Amino acid sequence: MTKICDGDQVLFYLDSRRHWLLRVEAGKSFHLHRGILNFDEVIGQQFGSFATTSLGTKIAALPPLPRDKAIKMGRQTNIVYPKDAGLILLLAGIGPGSTVVEAGTGSGALASLIGYHVSPNGGVISYEIREDFAEVAINNLEKAGLKGIVTVKQQDILEGITEKNVDSVVLDLAVPWDVVPHAYNALRGGGVIVSFSPTIEQTQRTVEALYASHFTEIVTRELIEREILVRPGKTRPATRMIGHTGYVTSARKVYPPRVTQH
Amino acid sequence: MTKICDGDQVLFYLDSRRHWLLRVEAGKSFHLHRGILNFDEVIGQQFGSFATTSLGTKIAALPPLPRDKAIKMGRQTNIVYPKDAGLILLLAGIGPGSTVVEAGTGSGALASLIGYHVSPNGGVISYEIREDFAEVAINNLEKAGLKGIVTVKQQDILEGITEKNVDSVVLDLAVPWDVVPHAYNALRGGGVIVSFSPTIEQTQRTVEALYASHFTEIVTRELIEREILVRPGKTRPATRMIGHTGYVTSARKVYPPRVTQH
Amino acid sequence: MTKICDGDQVLFYLDSRRHWLLRVEAGKSFHLHRGILNFDEVIGQQFGSFATTSLGTKIAALPPLPRDKAIKMGRQTNIVYPKDAGLILLLAGIGPGSTVVEAGTGSGALASLIGYHVSPNGGVISYEIREDFAEVAINNLEKAGLKGIVTVKQQDILEGITEKNVDSVVLDLAVPWDVVPHAYNALRGGGVIVSFSPTIEQTQRTVEALYASHFTEIVTRELIEREILVRPGKTRPATRMIGHTGYVTSARKVYPPRVTQH
Amino acid sequence: MTKICDGDQVLFYLDSRRHWLLRVEAGKSFHLHRGILNFDEVIGQQFGSFATTSLGTKIAALPPLPRDKAIKMGRQTNIVYPKDAGLILLLAGIGPGSTVVEAGTGSGALASLIGYHVSPNGGVISYEIREDFAEVAINNLEKAGLKGIVTVKQQDILEGITEKNVDSVVLDLAVPWDVVPHAYNALRGGGVIVSFSPTIEQTQRTVEALYASHFTEIVTRELIEREILVRPGKTRPATRMIGHTGYVTSARKVYPPRVTQH
Repeated sequence: MTKICDGDQVLFYLDSRRHWLLRVEAGKSFHLHRGILNFDEVIGQQFGSFATTSLGTKIAALPPLPRDKAIKMGRQTNIVYPKDAGLILLLAGIGPGSTVVEAGTGSGALASLIGYHVSPNGGVISYEIREDFAEVAINNLEKAGLKGIVTVKQQDILEGITEKNVDSVVLDLAVPWDVVPHAYNALRGGGVIVSFSPTIEQTQRTVEALYASHFTEIVTRELIEREILVRPGKTRPATRMIGHTGYVTSARKVYPPRVTQH
Repeated sequence: MTKICDGDQVLFYLDSRRHWLLRVEAGKSFHLHRGILNFDEVIGQQFGSFATTSLGTKIAALPPLPRDKAIKMGRQTNIVYPKDAGLILLLAGIGPGSTVVEAGTGSGALASLIGYHVSPNGGVISYEIREDFAEVAINNLEKAGLKGIVTVKQQDILEGITEKNVDSVVLDLAVPWDVVPHAYNALRGGGVIVSFSPTIEQTQRTVEALYASHFTEIVTRELIEREILVRPGKTRPATRMIGHTGYVTSARKVYPPRVTQH
Repeated sequence: MTKICDGDQVLFYLDSRRHWLLRVEAGKSFHLHRGILNFDEVIGQQFGSFATTSLGTKIAALPPLPRDKAIKMGRQTNIVYPKDAGLILLLAGIGPGSTVVEAGTGSGALASLIGYHVSPNGGVISYEIREDFAEVAINNLEKAGLKGIVTVKQQDILEGITEKNVDSVVLDLAVPWDVVPHAYNALRGGGVIVSFSPTIEQTQRTVEALYASHFTEIVTRELIEREILVRPGKTRPATRMIGHTGYVTSARKVYPPRVTQH
Repeated sequence: MTKICDGDQVLFYLDSRRHWLLRVEAGKSFHLHRGILNFDEVIGQQFGSFATTSLGTKIAALPPLPRDKAIKMGRQTNIVYPKDAGLILLLAGIGPGSTVVEAGTGSGALASLIGYHVSPNGGVISYEIREDFAEVAINNLEKAGLKGIVTVKQQDILEGITEKNVDSVVLDLAVPWDVVPHAYNALRGGGVIVSFSPTIEQTQRTVEALYASHFTEIVTRELIEREILVRPGKTRPATRMIGHTGYVTSARKVYPPRVTQH
């Protein structure tokens, strides 16, 4: 049982559309249409208990998960969906102790998830060409407690990757194909590159570049997520859904000479 | 750069349908239709380099990823797909240091993936009622180097969960709904339960049980994975695909009293 | 080449979101945010040519297809998607000369499509319990030129189907399962029943009823439609899509005695 | 009630995987692993009744639907799925009395479905460059009773379409884009072209050609069909499914000058 402390991040959850990730600070409050939430009444309660607004609405005070933080960061630039982030982790074999190069950082959403999963002994080096994004990301990652794990490099990854012998390279870039040869040089033998792209043309050029470099097990996947509304007597998939986020292409580095096997 | 040592597990990868996860031992060999693979010639090479059979076929010697090991274990009982395992990890917020209760163990495939991700300081307690499965799983998990991380309990989880204050409970069971009250008691406030079921009736009964216990943010998702065949001038989704693996239902524990919000 | 005449229905098509199905009448006009469309300037033009508004916007004047008319009718009650209507026609084998019983009529959208396809010698008998819907549908079907083809019966189909030896029965009802025995009696040997239901529970009860009556080849299908945005260098499925419309269950009548084959 | 006559085509249906489309002829029989089916005992029975083999297995004797015939034809060259054929019909507005140009004929599967739906007063002109395919198709279409409705032209549609003022052009070709200008000339104003292609590159080139010619309402769709196994307590989508058949692109002819609206 963990008590909510002054300064903790809390996910206040009303329902699937209305929830807020907030830092509770003594003496402060949050105004919502269902009344005022006084943080002094929240501090000292157990995580998982209900907070009550001035108008009597009960809101669950949940401990934020990495996905909650990532979704909040994602709103600033582009969203990382749990389905895609989970697949990337599994395909790349990213886990505790992994060393991962990632680009572009954006607001740090994907970097924060990878950083969480490589903790406490691994590391993420995240490349971001834009200074404004890098600043936002550094701030976000610090708030998420990942300062020592994720290093944001304000640098163009198209010019090369300095790191060597890394376990995986994760790309969410407009032009991933030009980074493929750099990724090859940065990866250890058998290391995994994963590239996420919304369009088929990006995917085609990336796959082409992977064949041209010495990669094997080149596979492109797409995940379609459906929410199922499970209600007594009225169970059905949701009427509206996200139809597409992106294509996930993964491959592993092998040493030449290599016989091409398409 | 890591050299392959005597006793290492190696993923020998020929193509997407032909690959073998083997332990290389000095003086031994592996016979395949493309010739004999002499392990003495593999030991001492870099991971990621090519091994050559007696008939001249080149096979990539890759370092196995957790997903490779899990897929091999899964063949003994039921397969855990990376798409589903990744989503479960993300939804449950399972990462380094997490304490997770899991059931049923089966051959240990999902437990091995969770165990990998909670390392080095977390732990997995995996319940399995069948003695034969428990034995297979203990053996598999030891081979995967997770002996100190995953504990297999040969015990019926329907009779209760001994652990308290765990971060998440992951269920892949025929009758998950009867475990929901036990999961509630075992979880910390805000902790996450995730249940994976192939049928809609299992999902319906589980969701009903989650509403009856004090859970919130109850969501059921299904992931449909398509492989995209990216080939010059002939790009298209694969003709045949896995149409369904299962429904993933997740929810978080809150303390009563709770106003039901469907 | 067909000229647009006074009184013709015309689909004025600006783009995928902005199009209007209108009857052009001499001396009248249509006001839209892009200017006024004077019908006198449209009458006498070829179908397929562009009409110009008072503000100079060009709008294609297309001959409306049955699907355009059905979509307009559908807006009044519930939409029939071309994907589902097309599958229903094919599964039921509905074509020129077919005799079809349909329920419920709603605004007549599905009845209009079936009516079009059974013309000129077939017939549709459409049951609708609600008087207000029946009136709307009769009006819609007359406008669509199907007065002699589709007969709307303001009657509860749960009380029975008067027709005999019909080729197919098409149901889009809240409680289709109670109509299954009536459909059996109405159908000819080998005749096809098709039922469309949004929820899985409706589908389950319908399938149960089909097994209980003497039906064979009982299959439930679901069609997921994705729009692909094909644009130079940016091809991808649309970000948002309709996630679910309904389940389509079809079966054929056989005479007893029947060995159940699940 | 219709009796089975000597010479009729009958769909003998055992289960979803075992069914045969046969012409019953007096004095003849069909040998299957479940015994011999004596056609003399079938002739004179009602369609929809059960026939019994020499080993006592009961098989439903169903009247074949157009889709049953099309599927059988399709096995000779390439399969036309009901989901795609239905969508094509609806998008193109093909119905009784329509005049349709189609290519390539293949074994006549799609032509037979279109032919059925334009009967009794419409017509299909189907282009097929290969003489062997054209012969097979002519034979198949005659058997399907569509001799007077579908005309197979053994001619290369890339060299032009002779017909004018047709209602729709349906393409299932390796290089549909080169036919787009011919289709424009052949179609009436507002007429519809529908092209079916398995690959995204074919679709891209076709869409490009449609924009270059004077077409509007250019939309590409893909239908994913899932079979739902509805069984008491075990309802779920089928484990394996067809992942992809093809992309369906449709557009309507408008007269120039046209303001491009993407």
